Amino acid sequence: PSETWRARARERLDSLTKPLGSLGRLEDLAAQIVSIRQDKAGDTVSKAVYIFAADHGIVAEGVSAYPREVTHQMVLNFLAQGAAINVLARLHHVHLQVVDVGVDAGLEGAPGLLHRKVARGTRNMLHEPAMSEEQLAQALTIGMDLAADAARAGHSFLAIGEMGIGNTTSASAITCALTGASSDLATGRGTGLDAEAHARKVAVVRAVGERHFGAAGQPSAALDILRCLGGLEIAAMTGMVLSAARHKLVIVADGFISTAAAAIAAAIEPKVGGYLIAGHCSQEPGHKLLLDYLALTPLLTLDMRLGEGTGAVLAMPILESAICLYQQMATFASAGVSGPSA
Amino acid sequence: PSETWRARARERLDSLTKPLGSLGRLEDLAAQIVSIRQDKAGDTVSKAVYIFAADHGIVAEGVSAYPREVTHQMVLNFLAQGAAINVLARLHHVHLQVVDVGVDAGLEGAPGLLHRKVARGTRNMLHEPAMSEEQLAQALTIGMDLAADAARAGHSFLAIGEMGIGNTTSASAITCALTGASSDLATGRGTGLDAEAHARKVAVVRAVGERHFGAAGQPSAALDILRCLGGLEIAAMTGMVLSAARHKLVIVADGFISTAAAAIAAAIEPKVGGYLIAGHCSQEPGHKLLLDYLALTPLLTLDMRLGEGTGAVLAMPILESAICLYQQMATFASAGVSGPSA
Repeated sequence: PSETWRARARERLDSLTKPLGSLGRLEDLAAQIVSIRQDKAGDTVSKAVYIFAADHGIVAEGVSAYPREVTHQMVLNFLAQGAAINVLARLHHVHLQVVDVGVDAGLEGAPGLLHRKVARGTRNMLHEPAMSEEQLAQALTIGMDLAADAARAGHSFLAIGEMGIGNTTSASAITCALTGASSDLATGRGTGLDAEAHARKVAVVRAVGERHFGAAGQPSAALDILRCLGGLEIAAMTGMVLSAARHKLVIVADGFISTAAAAIAAAIEPKVGGYLIAGHCSQEPGHKLLLDYLALTPLLTLDMRLGEGTGAVLAMPILESAICLYQQMATFASAGVSGPSA
Repeated sequence: PSETWRARARERLDSLTKPLGSLGRLEDLAAQIVSIRQDKAGDTVSKAVYIFAADHGIVAEGVSAYPREVTHQMVLNFLAQGAAINVLARLHHVHLQVVDVGVDAGLEGAPGLLHRKVARGTRNMLHEPAMSEEQLAQALTIGMDLAADAARAGHSFLAIGEMGIGNTTSASAITCALTGASSDLATGRGTGLDAEAHARKVAVVRAVGERHFGAAGQPSAALDILRCLGGLEIAAMTGMVLSAARHKLVIVADGFISTAAAAIAAAIEPKVGGYLIAGHCSQEPGHKLLLDYLALTPLLTLDMRLGEGTGAVLAMPILESAICLYQQMATFASAGVSGPSA
């Protein structure tokens, strides 16, 4: 982000017909958006959400409340306009794209889907790295290419969302590896595990970390963490985040899983942090750990835990409000409004 | 609100294609909206914001950073589409109405304004009641009649906003009288007072309470509090809130001042609480006291302190999201998505 553009934005914000600073975080957001968009800060906002779908080998360990085929079924629900994200994207005029990066089902004939399948899901990371080097590179490239496509299509705000039964387990393992948190702090109930299943998931997350990084959990390169702990949808989102600066895109992270992707991207290239906005804070305990790691304050805290990009899309109207206020409000001078008394 | 309709809403929410409860507060909001709207819960949402403008005799005591004429100037700015609320209302498709209930200026010729002037501002509540009995009744009736008009026009969600130099002093005095809080806890910096001016405002708020309710601050009837402490815009908003049940309207409170009006309404008729949604929590310290008094949890916390209905209108997309998800999402059965594993 450009500090010159941010300072210019601050100056304009102080000239608008409102008490100084009275729009609070909306002013910070407007300044951040201007620092990212720069010469495009005056353009009409165009919003998109990308849902990356993939399956996970780790579900063999019984870490999810829902069966594996729900990933495929929900992709069909997205395409049929029936899911929560469809309702929200339609309502808030956010262009929705569904990307198959690794669903374990034949989706070749599905219309409206972006076909980018790398594999039919990751391998079981309890026993081996979730991805090969080649698969990781492919998934990263998919996200990067889609960011370029989005910029070419004129989108300015991109929400990153996902669908993948088992992927909170991946996000928990990534959180432990990146932040050093213990698996019990970084592991939640996902889509609704009971206490016994949750204890099993905590143990799996711990075992996965020990399998790949040793009992001491010694730090590893971010790309290695991503390759070993997956998933393909997380890697694709990481690629999208890594492309933000190049295309002057504002990236809105959603919940625990998309924030894990953003955290990996920031570990690879710290300056991507300036392009990120945390849409919300989910109920997954690891999400807060990642937001702290990224030093991001979420816009919304509504106890959501759905994924699909829903929390990010719900934050879009706030972001759009911030930049529209910056673009459209009258100044004290133009409106003939008096300033503070001497 | 109808508990029968709320229970019916919960049942439907649990059938939609998402993990149980995973939409968090959006599910509570949807259930509340259905309990208010009842047979109209399936209707398309129509949103409006009413800005009530009035002046305050208490500004003679030097309690505001901005001069009194800014009330009038900002009304003209609203009519010219230049203020923050204009930008937000336009962006989020919220029908905006500006109501003169007590501006100290001749606005007879202003086009687009709802002319309901009761007086050219309140009297100085440090020395006498802010309003007469007749003025109070007129202002309450204005809000009630406008609620009826709004319902007739098909609006379902009403945001209540205000403009009135000096009105945080009124809201602070009301907060002390309703909650028993001390004036230093209930009095903030308004549009931007320095430390010395803030200390003066705290003293004025304390003196006003003692003037009307005695040194012990003994409790008084809510309508007396409203009449003595004003202002006309607060009384009009109170009237609007009191009409919510009759018209099945969802009322979205904005910041400190509109929440003071809502608190007075709830003190008069406790059941209005079920029709209220707190759009946001402002930076004014008294706002939190009133939200606690009303047992409301704000949807947004963005450190705003502007008024005009801005925080309420910014929360509208969240409310609309909640009811649209309820109305439009597919069910597990209709979409052929599997439920949790046995």
